[in-house]
Amino acid sequence: MSFNTFGKIFRFTTWGESHGPAIGCVVDGCPPNIALTEKDIQSDMDRRRPGKSKFTSQRKEADKVEILSGVFQGKTTGTPISMIICNKDARSRDYETIKNKFRPGHADYTYFIKYGIRDYRGGGRQSARETASRVAAGAIAKTVLKKLIGEKFKIVGAVIQLGLLGCNKNNWKNNEIRKNPFFCPDKKSVKLWEKYLLAVRKSGSSCGAVIELRASGIPIGLGAPIYSKLDADLASALMSINAVKGINIGAGMNASLLSGEENSDEIRSIGKKIKFKSNKAGGILGGISSGQDIIASFAVKPTSSILKSRETIDKKIKNTKISVKGRHDPCVGIRAVPIGEAMMACVLLDHYLLNRAQCS
Amino acid sequence: MSFNTFGKIFRFTTWGESHGPAIGCVVDGCPPNIALTEKDIQSDMDRRRPGKSKFTSQRKEADKVEILSGVFQGKTTGTPISMIICNKDARSRDYETIKNKFRPGHADYTYFIKYGIRDYRGGGRQSARETASRVAAGAIAKTVLKKLIGEKFKIVGAVIQLGLLGCNKNNWKNNEIRKNPFFCPDKKSVKLWEKYLLAVRKSGSSCGAVIELRASGIPIGLGAPIYSKLDADLASALMSINAVKGINIGAGMNASLLSGEENSDEIRSIGKKIKFKSNKAGGILGGISSGQDIIASFAVKPTSSILKSRETIDKKIKNTKISVKGRHDPCVGIRAVPIGEAMMACVLLDHYLLNRAQCS
Amino acid sequence: MSFNTFGKIFRFTTWGESHGPAIGCVVDGCPPNIALTEKDIQSDMDRRRPGKSKFTSQRKEADKVEILSGVFQGKTTGTPISMIICNKDARSRDYETIKNKFRPGHADYTYFIKYGIRDYRGGGRQSARETASRVAAGAIAKTVLKKLIGEKFKIVGAVIQLGLLGCNKNNWKNNEIRKNPFFCPDKKSVKLWEKYLLAVRKSGSSCGAVIELRASGIPIGLGAPIYSKLDADLASALMSINAVKGINIGAGMNASLLSGEENSDEIRSIGKKIKFKSNKAGGILGGISSGQDIIASFAVKPTSSILKSRETIDKKIKNTKISVKGRHDPCVGIRAVPIGEAMMACVLLDHYLLNRAQCS
Amino acid sequence: MSFNTFGKIFRFTTWGESHGPAIGCVVDGCPPNIALTEKDIQSDMDRRRPGKSKFTSQRKEADKVEILSGVFQGKTTGTPISMIICNKDARSRDYETIKNKFRPGHADYTYFIKYGIRDYRGGGRQSARETASRVAAGAIAKTVLKKLIGEKFKIVGAVIQLGLLGCNKNNWKNNEIRKNPFFCPDKKSVKLWEKYLLAVRKSGSSCGAVIELRASGIPIGLGAPIYSKLDADLASALMSINAVKGINIGAGMNASLLSGEENSDEIRSIGKKIKFKSNKAGGILGGISSGQDIIASFAVKPTSSILKSRETIDKKIKNTKISVKGRHDPCVGIRAVPIGEAMMACVLLDHYLLNRAQCS
Repeated sequence: MSFNTFGKIFRFTTWGESHGPAIGCVVDGCPPNIALTEKDIQSDMDRRRPGKSKFTSQRKEADKVEILSGVFQGKTTGTPISMIICNKDARSRDYETIKNKFRPGHADYTYFIKYGIRDYRGGGRQSARETASRVAAGAIAKTVLKKLIGEKFKIVGAVIQLGLLGCNKNNWKNNEIRKNPFFCPDKKSVKLWEKYLLAVRKSGSSCGAVIELRASGIPIGLGAPIYSKLDADLASALMSINAVKGINIGAGMNASLLSGEENSDEIRSIGKKIKFKSNKAGGILGGISSGQDIIASFAVKPTSSILKSRETIDKKIKNTKISVKGRHDPCVGIRAVPIGEAMMACVLLDHYLLNRAQCS
Repeated sequence: MSFNTFGKIFRFTTWGESHGPAIGCVVDGCPPNIALTEKDIQSDMDRRRPGKSKFTSQRKEADKVEILSGVFQGKTTGTPISMIICNKDARSRDYETIKNKFRPGHADYTYFIKYGIRDYRGGGRQSARETASRVAAGAIAKTVLKKLIGEKFKIVGAVIQLGLLGCNKNNWKNNEIRKNPFFCPDKKSVKLWEKYLLAVRKSGSSCGAVIELRASGIPIGLGAPIYSKLDADLASALMSINAVKGINIGAGMNASLLSGEENSDEIRSIGKKIKFKSNKAGGILGGISSGQDIIASFAVKPTSSILKSRETIDKKIKNTKISVKGRHDPCVGIRAVPIGEAMMACVLLDHYLLNRAQCS
Repeated sequence: MSFNTFGKIFRFTTWGESHGPAIGCVVDGCPPNIALTEKDIQSDMDRRRPGKSKFTSQRKEADKVEILSGVFQGKTTGTPISMIICNKDARSRDYETIKNKFRPGHADYTYFIKYGIRDYRGGGRQSARETASRVAAGAIAKTVLKKLIGEKFKIVGAVIQLGLLGCNKNNWKNNEIRKNPFFCPDKKSVKLWEKYLLAVRKSGSSCGAVIELRASGIPIGLGAPIYSKLDADLASALMSINAVKGINIGAGMNASLLSGEENSDEIRSIGKKIKFKSNKAGGILGGISSGQDIIASFAVKPTSSILKSRETIDKKIKNTKISVKGRHDPCVGIRAVPIGEAMMACVLLDHYLLNRAQCS
Repeated sequence: MSFNTFGKIFRFTTWGESHGPAIGCVVDGCPPNIALTEKDIQSDMDRRRPGKSKFTSQRKEADKVEILSGVFQGKTTGTPISMIICNKDARSRDYETIKNKFRPGHADYTYFIKYGIRDYRGGGRQSARETASRVAAGAIAKTVLKKLIGEKFKIVGAVIQLGLLGCNKNNWKNNEIRKNPFFCPDKKSVKLWEKYLLAVRKSGSSCGAVIELRASGIPIGLGAPIYSKLDADLASALMSINAVKGINIGAGMNASLLSGEENSDEIRSIGKKIKFKSNKAGGILGGISSGQDIIASFAVKPTSSILKSRETIDKKIKNTKISVKGRHDPCVGIRAVPIGEAMMACVLLDHYLLNRAQCS
């Protein structure tokens, strides 16, 4: 059923609201005997947490993860790993003025109609704060995959488009991504992006982004042929991230513009080694990994919480206006990079384990 | 686990290979007491089946659906509805020459490595023939939704881009779509598309397509907030269709190019009636339907089976060339329209029933 | 959700009604490259099918299984295996007289209230005819387990109590079970059972039975610690068989009568080999197989369709009487032996594959 | 998959080890707008917690439940309800002497072989301490059912057999059950049970128990016909409780001893009201509730941790002896009463919601 659970065999369940006492995550189905410490998880948490630069929300959260179960003497035991992250800097009073209004672009209205309840405090459960839990689960998935596959396994995400500005993917450098606050892989784009985003924020507006994910070292054969295709599961995983509206696998939407031969990814062998001449498929053929890099990208819409005044209604269905103050990211897409990586890691581990079940 | 099952509570399981004796589908979780006949299903089957125009595969299949269980005295009983579709015109000999080669862009290679088996006959289970079963399940979902929601419920799909050629969506006419072999909603584009596709086919190549789906009459509140978001489930459903590489919900990938205010979908009330000023969100806010039309589009890659010679390897990992003869669609995207509609119908019904469970 | 699907990773979905054109089963998650023919399945079907002796229903069904998908060149392909069994000898007219009455002990009344529908023809979906599909799925599970574990794997079921008559389990002979129509493991009990059952039938009544299942050669480590305990899954599997009302694992209900030391199953090692001194636990400790034989038993209630007149109501909620004629087993428990074996085989294979996923 | 998750639509996931910092539970799928406080949960926790009488473990745990999410302004919000229970009185040193030995009857050996890990501290995850989390989830289920069904809904559990001593069920008084430390419904049995259990404990041994559960006010139509039968789900739920070895629904194992007419539960109508003349079926016909009381019982084996010396092996597969000191219940079955009630409540709520989805 899985309202708040993700995964088939490596599964995690998240809980918690933006302004509750804590948020957290229970990871089930993790293989035993994997070395795991809170430190392994914290580094990804730190990449996602707010308040690190002037380009993200100024909410001060250490996002410190505490493991409550499932690890004994430094190793996973095969039982559920429960993690908790306390909320330290929730300022519910920021939301008092909009308590009875539905913020356009947010889930305020749909939640209220569906559940008959309005948790106005920072958006409650709909807040992107929930994604901190996913990053924690994803860090475990990465640790397990590194143990199972070896050092050749890697997942890298980067922002390849910030609002209207792209970057030059030919300049992609993995080690550049962590050096700038935009997760931009192209050093040359950073300055321009900085100016652009400052202008966006100053104007009381916001902008979107496109994130690209690349996983390498993935064995051939992960995925399932029909409804649990590797790409279908990735699409579901990425579309479940707040504010995501579009998904590409490999050439993605652009595949529709290619001819059959352009899109072919011809195959060559050199000795017993197989090499594809291109990777339009994003490393997935018929829902199953081909041994090439898995490549997916996703579009994040512009932050819906903006200063600019917009028209909306209140809980009494009366027309009104709204201007959202508070500590919001001018571009929520930026912090989506570690979240996307986390979701991809979880999907890959899930299919790694499933493949072991069915085809080992 | 769901390798070959789709859905949470309205579920269907498909089975069968392209050149086996039959394919089929078992629908479970269908509400009882819904009037249902084979005729209700056949009309959608006919929209998908091959051989109807010179722009699709010439394989002659009546795609006649037979209901084997779950319907008594013209009504669903709440028990599994088993449907079977016989394969009549499989020509396995067409595949003899490529029996030991991996077709680029197809799943031949990944299936072979994963399962250690090569079912070369028309692609076996990886064939898009499996989608006939989905259309049958989707036709049931549509019938149930029409009964539960009423006549205002409607799902319409159309091809909005054929290879390099778009159409003018301002000219969209629902009743035009069934009048041309391209499922094109814009009468003015049909002639040009016809010339274009003939040229593509003549050259031994193929092209892609973009399909747009629109569902109207959908109640507010369908969906779940985190991992079973309505859009995440739609993304998974559509990405599971053969050859699909990209998914948009509402503004989709383009949402990344909009400003916060452009993307807002401001809300107005007229009396007690609520109206959104735009629908960038595609009718889904925070994973939950907003009462607006649900709008999704998806990109289909060009048909991988083309006459043009391409490089590949054989089962012995030797380099070779391949040219795929046989009866292939020059653009598999065209017949994807009823398939996309079917998947959307199944997702919507699933969430309709789930919402009834949790929030009625 | 699984209304009509059983299993987690090795899953089967059954469909069909007692008097519809056919019944069937789709097996998903079967490992590839396992040699499988219809013959492997038919022998278990033959053990369950009616009409073989005067002690079972005289309905004449060949119960011939046809495989429609998932097997290519004699081997499983890893894709869904669809099986169909035609209904040949349905006599719906036998049910005309009780069409509007609710048979006591049957599901007529609860189905009617739940679904608003009465499929009176042989009980429709509630008929034990559905169990033929399970036997087919179970035969596949047995074949796979034999391949994965080797020849030491075996599942044997037997009737250890027929109505009021037990048998002497010390006389248990596996090869005796197939020699008598009661699946009785104790040769000495057969004659008495024969007389007893003839008397029961002649009186227009029916009797219950207890079946014991023994699986040997099962590796240590199958099962999951909390909610998917091997014994919890067995209990669910066996209780899902029509007419089953009680389940024992190992000592079962009698475990409540033992002292802590009697129930201990003390452990000894002889060299590196481990040996338990008893098997009160039925081969399962903490939900996980211990390497001992897995032992479960279940009680089947007496057939509810009896000649003797009983009080009941009709669809108009009027008081009436009912006497059920037709071709009924005087003891449905007898044919439950191959069904129980099938369910146990499916549970064991499921956990074998799951364990491979999580702990290999 | 559900290693540590129970339920289909009302689902809970438990985590935590006996001697870790805490244990807990995440409840997903709870309907919104149900009044819920920690107090509603605590009263059931108090019924299960140890240290309340001399007949249970002397471990001092307040078992205080803290709700961390999913409740806002005193009402459920439809989002996950996370609950945490701190472990206060773990004494891992008690386990130092048996650290390298496998306790007979416990899961020490099977966990160690399966996971390659020995969490010797109080049994780690295999400890019945996990059941505290279930009681918390069950208390929520009861609260929701009371809201949905009304005051006529009730679940009552009682110990009907303590070791070798039964009680007289004709003397069953619901209000008696809470008055004695044995959850015994028959006042007249209490004194004898007290003497008996003291003697058992003094001898360094332990004894088993049988618990009976009765749910009333349950609507007709809950359950599903084949693999999610209400009784199959109850069997799985109850068998998943630590130390349970046998399950009866209604007449249970004894149904095998009845004749067809004795087992009939004949039906009568008085006006439009329907009345069954008996309840051998335990309120479930064909897997679906009949409107009668749901009656199930289960057998708990004697506590495996006993003082009496027994033979076993250690981690090096050497023969040794073991005598388990520490603070153990002489009969773990006693505290199983609220656990059984909790599991039954969760199953019933699950099917209540499912029925609303499929048949409302």
